[in-house]
Amino acid sequence: MILGGDCLVDLAPFAYLNERYDGELAVLWVDTHPDIMTPAQFNHAHAMVLGNLMGDGDRDFTQAVKCPVKPENVLFVGLHDPTEWEAGEIRRLGLKNVGPAELGQKGSQSVLDWFKSTGAKHLAIHLDLDVFNPKLFHALLFAEPNVPADTFEGIAQGELTMTQVIQVLDDVSAVADVVGLGIAEHLPWDVLALKTMLTRLPLIGRTTERDGS
Amino acid sequence: MILGGDCLVDLAPFAYLNERYDGELAVLWVDTHPDIMTPAQFNHAHAMVLGNLMGDGDRDFTQAVKCPVKPENVLFVGLHDPTEWEAGEIRRLGLKNVGPAELGQKGSQSVLDWFKSTGAKHLAIHLDLDVFNPKLFHALLFAEPNVPADTFEGIAQGELTMTQVIQVLDDVSAVADVVGLGIAEHLPWDVLALKTMLTRLPLIGRTTERDGS
Repeated sequence: MILGGDCLVDLAPFAYLNERYDGELAVLWVDTHPDIMTPAQFNHAHAMVLGNLMGDGDRDFTQAVKCPVKPENVLFVGLHDPTEWEAGEIRRLGLKNVGPAELGQKGSQSVLDWFKSTGAKHLAIHLDLDVFNPKLFHALLFAEPNVPADTFEGIAQGELTMTQVIQVLDDVSAVADVVGLGIAEHLPWDVLALKTMLTRLPLIGRTTERDGS
Repeated sequence: MILGGDCLVDLAPFAYLNERYDGELAVLWVDTHPDIMTPAQFNHAHAMVLGNLMGDGDRDFTQAVKCPVKPENVLFVGLHDPTEWEAGEIRRLGLKNVGPAELGQKGSQSVLDWFKSTGAKHLAIHLDLDVFNPKLFHALLFAEPNVPADTFEGIAQGELTMTQVIQVLDDVSAVADVVGLGIAEHLPWDVLALKTMLTRLPLIGRTTERDGS
């Protein structure tokens, strides 16, 4: 179980798990974005981690993956509106997705069907918090306060509720042996703002400075 | 320094401070609401605490106030759109307010002028976090996710930014001896949601239940 950091935190643990389970690990990637870019598309490693796990992308990272995850053992949940390059790569690799609309209509059924189809016993779950609707859960990059309305234009934002995600993970864990869970991209704006404010208020921040302590 | 709880947390400490400083304590009430109701208007004690401090309101609380705060030693910051009853009571008591518009135009000047006019040396500051705009800071009652849009209709909501409040408290603390600071009404929805989710996910909540540990 991993909590915090960006999506990259799941690289080494998931690579280890797939090796441990002889390349038969199934991976549920609960995320608005596919995280399969390479340095040719985007220079942030956190957008590449699933690609790395399948043996693609930056060699600095893929060399940590001795046994790549099979694309047919990967399922996205909550992915929508990939870029054109991502959509092509998803087709090329044959990666499947249960998007927000399908999840809303059918619940967990497609996820359970996919897990059965893999023949896998062990499942690792990647949960990028940005899969949540930033109007309902605000501890996310996309809920940054005080920025122009078009700051994140053109980037897909989360559409799922916490209740939906809890349900699908609950259902799949009833049929799979969940051996890994990574929760990433927590960005608690309110906590950061409150902390900054406290260090600047009288009797707390300022007084401490005056005392030199 | 007090952090957390509802506005009522400031009653006993502020009453003590006014007694200690011989009834000459000045009080800056940074809040969207005046907190001067009595049981006749509203049955929640947190909406009465400033009234109690001035000797009004529920006897269960006013008996804790041996030396009431003088209304002329009180200044609101950020108050706006009081109810009709509150507006009348504010007039009756002669309570002054630097509302969001005035603060935006003149900065801290009116606050500094008021403090000088009181002749007080010691200042206690009440900071109700609901003075902040709930679209910019979400750890507030009024930023409750997943509720109908009209849930808080008719109740004044915060209009200040954190930067404004830090500035005014910084300025006033340069001329006043700040002896008390109470920060109230912190309601971290994201933290509560995340905590609930974690207890229900595989490898954390559910697995623990299965193990019976």
